Amino acid sequence: MERNDALGEWSEQARPPALFRRFAFDSYAQTRAFLDRLAQVQDELGLAPQNISFGTTYVNVTIAASDGALGEGERELARRIAAAATGEARA
Amino acid sequence: MERNDALGEWSEQARPPALFRRFAFDSYAQTRAFLDRLAQVQDELGLAPQNISFGTTYVNVTIAASDGALGEGERELARRIAAAATGEARA
Repeated sequence: MERNDALGEWSEQARPPALFRRFAFDSYAQTRAFLDRLAQVQDELGLAPQNISFGTTYVNVTIAASDGALGEGERELARRIAAAATGEARA
Repeated sequence: MERNDALGEWSEQARPPALFRRFAFDSYAQTRAFLDRLAQVQDELGLAPQNISFGTTYVNVTIAASDGALGEGERELARRIAAAATGEARA
């Protein structure tokens, strides 16, 4: 099983500061399960991705810096989201 | 209260054929409630938007033609999604 929790698998852009990652799934059911867990992570951390863009078998997540630069909060959010996809995400 | 169920409020593009609409909300709670209803509509119709892109207070919905041209199925999906936002969507 592929590790999906590594922060290094997020791509980081500089202007504006943001983390981006695409998660792919085999089915709509898996996609929805991931979206539900993602919502739970948001609630627990009180921090939300700037944008979540999804279709039936993929979810693109963009986490923007809340105050000019990416901080530990954003990186924790990224780690928790990746952990929520572990075991379900494809590739 | 503004009517949000009119099909005419969707913008239609020709190439490729698709319907697009942006729904705005006052709170993340309203956004989530709409996303949940949107998932129910998908399940009921067995038809899903090509893409749903959301942040804490907006949801952009793109419905693509399933076989070359927009048909009654896509228009019904659009109407049902708009109805799911009625009373919650802002402007």
